Amino acid sequence: MTPTDATLEFWHEFASPYCYLSAARIEALAAAARVRILWRPFLLGPIFRRRPHQPSPAQDGPPDEARYRRRDIERLCADYKLPLTWPTGYPRISLLGARVALLAGDDAWAPAFTRAVYHASFAEDRDIGAAPVIAGILTDLGQDPAAVIAQAATPEHKARLAAQVEAAVARGIFGAPSFVAADGELFWGNDRLEQAIAWAVAQRGAA
Amino acid sequence: MTPTDATLEFWHEFASPYCYLSAARIEALAAAARVRILWRPFLLGPIFRRRPHQPSPAQDGPPDEARYRRRDIERLCADYKLPLTWPTGYPRISLLGARVALLAGDDAWAPAFTRAVYHASFAEDRDIGAAPVIAGILTDLGQDPAAVIAQAATPEHKARLAAQVEAAVARGIFGAPSFVAADGELFWGNDRLEQAIAWAVAQRGAA
Repeated sequence: MTPTDATLEFWHEFASPYCYLSAARIEALAAAARVRILWRPFLLGPIFRRRPHQPSPAQDGPPDEARYRRRDIERLCADYKLPLTWPTGYPRISLLGARVALLAGDDAWAPAFTRAVYHASFAEDRDIGAAPVIAGILTDLGQDPAAVIAQAATPEHKARLAAQVEAAVARGIFGAPSFVAADGELFWGNDRLEQAIAWAVAQRGAA
Repeated sequence: MTPTDATLEFWHEFASPYCYLSAARIEALAAAARVRILWRPFLLGPIFRRRPHQPSPAQDGPPDEARYRRRDIERLCADYKLPLTWPTGYPRISLLGARVALLAGDDAWAPAFTRAVYHASFAEDRDIGAAPVIAGILTDLGQDPAAVIAQAATPEHKARLAAQVEAAVARGIFGAPSFVAADGELFWGNDRLEQAIAWAVAQRGAA
C-alpha cells in the first residue's frame, strides 16, 4: 500500500440524526488524515426487525431516553456548529435516499448527494422519503433525476440494497453510523468517528 | 456563587464498565476545571426491570452488539491507558458496593472507595458482590469494615438506596454513567463526560 491508501467504510442510514452529524464531519477529518472514505448507505429497518424486543432506542425507547437523545443531538449540533431543525416526520423514510446513494456508489457526486440528503432532512425538515425532494437534490448536482430514480427502482437495484444490508450484518453492524477499517475493525456511533479515523491511519502505518 | 462553586453530579453503577472509565477519569478532569464532583451511586437494575423489552444493551443485547461493546471497552481502556481484565462473572452484583458508597456519601473516602471498587472489578476481576472484597477495600481505606457493612445493611439504609434510585429517575436518568449539572442538564455516557464538565464550567460563568 502507498501512504495514501488508508480507507474507512462509512455505513450510514438517512433516518439517523447521528449519521447526519458524521456525514457533516467525516470529509474534513478524513482529508486531514489522508484517509479515503468508502460511502456505504444501508437500511437499519431490516436489522431492527430481526429483534422484536430491541427496537431502535432513538425511535422506540422509553420516553426519558427518547427525550434525552433529542437533547443530545441539539447539544452536539451546537458544539459542531451544525444547523438543526428536528424532522416533523421523524423518523423519515430513508428508502429512496438509500437506493440512490447506493447507485452513486463511490462516484464523485456521492458525498455531495449524501450530505445534501441529510441536510434536507435535519436542517430543513424536508421529507426525504418523497421523490420530488430527492429529484431536486439530483438536479442541483447535475444528475438526471428521472433517469436516476428509475434506475434506483429496478428489481436488480432493490436486490443490491438488500444485499448491502446483509453485507452490513456480515461485518457485525447493528446500528448507525458504523465505520469499518480495512482490517475489519468496527466502530459504532458518531462518538467513535475520530477513533475510527485514527485506526485507519495506524493501519496504513502498519501496512 | 463563588468561582469554585461549579458542581456536577456523577451517577454511577458498579456493574457498568463505562462507569469504570468515567470513575477513573472524572477526578482529574474536574480538578482541572475546578468543578466539584458529587458522587451519586445508584442501581440500574430497578430501572431496567420497569421496561421488560429494553434490557441493558451491554448485558442482554444481541450477540453482535454485546461483542462490540466489549471490544469498545478494550479499545477505550487502551486509549486511556487503563488496566482491564474482563470480569468473569459479568455483570457483577453491585448491590453491596452501592450501599457502602451511598453511606460514604460525599465524605473524604468516597472517591477512593468508588475508584477501588471499579478497579477490583474491572482491573483485577474480583467479585465485588462478595462482602470480603468490599471489606478489604474498606480496611485499606482505614474504615472499620464490620461496622460499615452492618450499617449499610440496615433497613433504613436499604430504603435510602431505593430512594436514590427514584431520585435518579426523577432526573430523567435511564442509564449509567450519567452526569447532572446544577441546572438539571443531563448527560449520559462516558463519551459525554468532557461535555458535562464544560457545561458545569459554563454554568459557573453564567451564575
